Amino acid sequence: MTAMDDSSFLKTIPYAPFLQVEYENRVEQARRLMKQRGFDALLVTSEHNLRYFVGDPSATPIQTTRPRFLLIPTSGDPVAIVPTGVDDFLRETTWIRNFRTWPGPNPKDEGVSVLAESLRGLLPDNAKVGTELGPESRLGLPTGDFLRVADAINPRTFADASDPIFTPLRMIKSPLEIDRIRTVCRVVSEAFESLPAKLRCGMTEREACRVFEFECFIRGIDKTTKINSISGRGGYTRPYGVPSDKVLSDGDLLYIDAGCMFDFYWSDFCRQFAFGRPDPHTQDAYEIVWDATEAGIAAVKPGIEICDLWTAMSDVLSGPKNRGKPSTVGRMGHSMGLWMPELPSVQPQDKTVLKPGMIVNIEPSTVYPSYFDGSPMMMVHEEVVVVTEIGAELLSSRTPRALPVVV
Amino acid sequence: MTAMDDSSFLKTIPYAPFLQVEYENRVEQARRLMKQRGFDALLVTSEHNLRYFVGDPSATPIQTTRPRFLLIPTSGDPVAIVPTGVDDFLRETTWIRNFRTWPGPNPKDEGVSVLAESLRGLLPDNAKVGTELGPESRLGLPTGDFLRVADAINPRTFADASDPIFTPLRMIKSPLEIDRIRTVCRVVSEAFESLPAKLRCGMTEREACRVFEFECFIRGIDKTTKINSISGRGGYTRPYGVPSDKVLSDGDLLYIDAGCMFDFYWSDFCRQFAFGRPDPHTQDAYEIVWDATEAGIAAVKPGIEICDLWTAMSDVLSGPKNRGKPSTVGRMGHSMGLWMPELPSVQPQDKTVLKPGMIVNIEPSTVYPSYFDGSPMMMVHEEVVVVTEIGAELLSSRTPRALPVVV
Repeated sequence: MTAMDDSSFLKTIPYAPFLQVEYENRVEQARRLMKQRGFDALLVTSEHNLRYFVGDPSATPIQTTRPRFLLIPTSGDPVAIVPTGVDDFLRETTWIRNFRTWPGPNPKDEGVSVLAESLRGLLPDNAKVGTELGPESRLGLPTGDFLRVADAINPRTFADASDPIFTPLRMIKSPLEIDRIRTVCRVVSEAFESLPAKLRCGMTEREACRVFEFECFIRGIDKTTKINSISGRGGYTRPYGVPSDKVLSDGDLLYIDAGCMFDFYWSDFCRQFAFGRPDPHTQDAYEIVWDATEAGIAAVKPGIEICDLWTAMSDVLSGPKNRGKPSTVGRMGHSMGLWMPELPSVQPQDKTVLKPGMIVNIEPSTVYPSYFDGSPMMMVHEEVVVVTEIGAELLSSRTPRALPVVV
Repeated sequence: MTAMDDSSFLKTIPYAPFLQVEYENRVEQARRLMKQRGFDALLVTSEHNLRYFVGDPSATPIQTTRPRFLLIPTSGDPVAIVPTGVDDFLRETTWIRNFRTWPGPNPKDEGVSVLAESLRGLLPDNAKVGTELGPESRLGLPTGDFLRVADAINPRTFADASDPIFTPLRMIKSPLEIDRIRTVCRVVSEAFESLPAKLRCGMTEREACRVFEFECFIRGIDKTTKINSISGRGGYTRPYGVPSDKVLSDGDLLYIDAGCMFDFYWSDFCRQFAFGRPDPHTQDAYEIVWDATEAGIAAVKPGIEICDLWTAMSDVLSGPKNRGKPSTVGRMGHSMGLWMPELPSVQPQDKTVLKPGMIVNIEPSTVYPSYFDGSPMMMVHEEVVVVTEIGAELLSSRTPRALPVVV
């Protein structure tokens, strides 16, 4: 019997959709911020913000053909403004009950008129409508259409709600959200841990990554969306790569940085694997970045600024033990949730205060000289933690302190 | 030996990156259209348009943290405007040689200044810059940032280039692009064909879809990004669904609509599977929509308008044989390529003229009464063709005329 004759080894992860109260809480929190920041309504257009408030279970990605909108006024039920047919789907699968529709697809007027009419009909003349315009946001409709709507609702105005509302709101995960992220990180950790026994010299980068994806898939992971991988003799030169047909052999270091999803929540962390006995420089760099990760995790607690994590890691990387130096990747971590990465970044200038429920991807890196030819190599580690009341809970399994070896 | 002990059954699909001339041709075609339509430059910001011109092999999705831009002037080399580090990656993996960079991530100025300076420095005061503002487009940077750049480059102006340039350009696929789409459609067809022997009564929708994804994965498909599935006794009520833990049993019809990717090119087509002997209404509806698909495929030829495909399919669906009626999904097909769906839509009002190299997803649907309780059920078929010099080449394998049955 081969894999192809029996599917009983394909696990599914137990799963229950969030209850309505989860979404009601999110809207309530958004309204608290709306009041504080002087917004009269929120217009939600982007895939991840819609997922956050609506709980839309559609397979990603949401079509560009049929945009979807959610209007959250300061009181009363949110109103979904969607193409005909999508209303039936959302009525059956989500908690949303109020709909306005247009017959889509209609490239000549893809919701612009209905959206403008809804905003004009439901909001006073002087309304300030928050939407996704700020850092790292993307609008979920063509910008030409957005500008037409903005014109049609005048004197009502649009203002950015990413920075004052969506980002801080989504930054603090609910216990149910943390549980989803805990699940996906745990399962991906198991897949990574299975690799030293499954990989072997002579495989290509592509084959090695396919084995990793397979190990995620059979354990019930929904999607292995981001498979970033690179390898090289004595190390890798940059932390971006696409698995190629290059054969892995003795002396190579393989880096796999994986972003995987379960029920739309992300994991994101990397691992490295030495093929054959690792050279001393690679081993040193691995241990120093392991120590920096340890320092980063240990520094996490509510009330500190995220830049303090940078300092904790940077101190280790710049210390006397390191033959190399901190890298210039530009940050040493970020957050994630329904999207990856999410703000804030672990950067020297970021003063975001850590609070319980925040996810932090602790991601230090160093540059060190190759053992073989002295050329600059990069070493990146990454682990996922959630900020707790007293410190950090590790959600990924923690890579071993000794570099995993493939024989 | 089980699947977990041996990875030799994991196939990879042979693959060679496109040569530089493929991208040079695309830029050349874009310039021809720029000249015709009076544009002085194109600013490319969206993931799929960047992939089209640059050939960026990064794992999808491109990060929202570090936006990337490509400026295509009317002559001379295109200029990539990207965060530091991304330039090294693109220099090593793509044909692009000119870079301007900024140290990202920098949420306070994520490329806005460098972008504005580049446009001011490289383009005359009266320049009209085309970018992604029109139907079904999405800008690859925050709209707030876009408006800041627009302000800073005044009197230079932005205008939509989706409708006049990007959409018509990408609508005609090159032979290499068609070959990618042929590959992914062929492999996904094989995965679908394997299902009647692998599925069984008693499985859940989720399990059935996991088996399908597994069959795609082991054959070398990169991503099974869109898995849209629904089932029901005597049929399904809407063509949108998320595979659930509902058990499939005798009398059920399972619909799987799959969008899968290989080297960033999409397949998209659906299949249905009867669990146990299908009831006569479902069987009739299946055959009528099969016939409508046949009529749609037969109607494809260069020079006709895409609305003629609608008419050809609608005539069959409205004919005397049909107990049901055409559905109100809003269209009976679309195109695809580096994104799915792409314009145009198969709609009565769409006058787009078919040309060789266009991909058309032929997708008729009908509503019919359930055999069990008379309630309205929907039946959707879908096949992928490419328009040739004389007609259509079928890229998906064509679902059998007799409804596939799972016992």
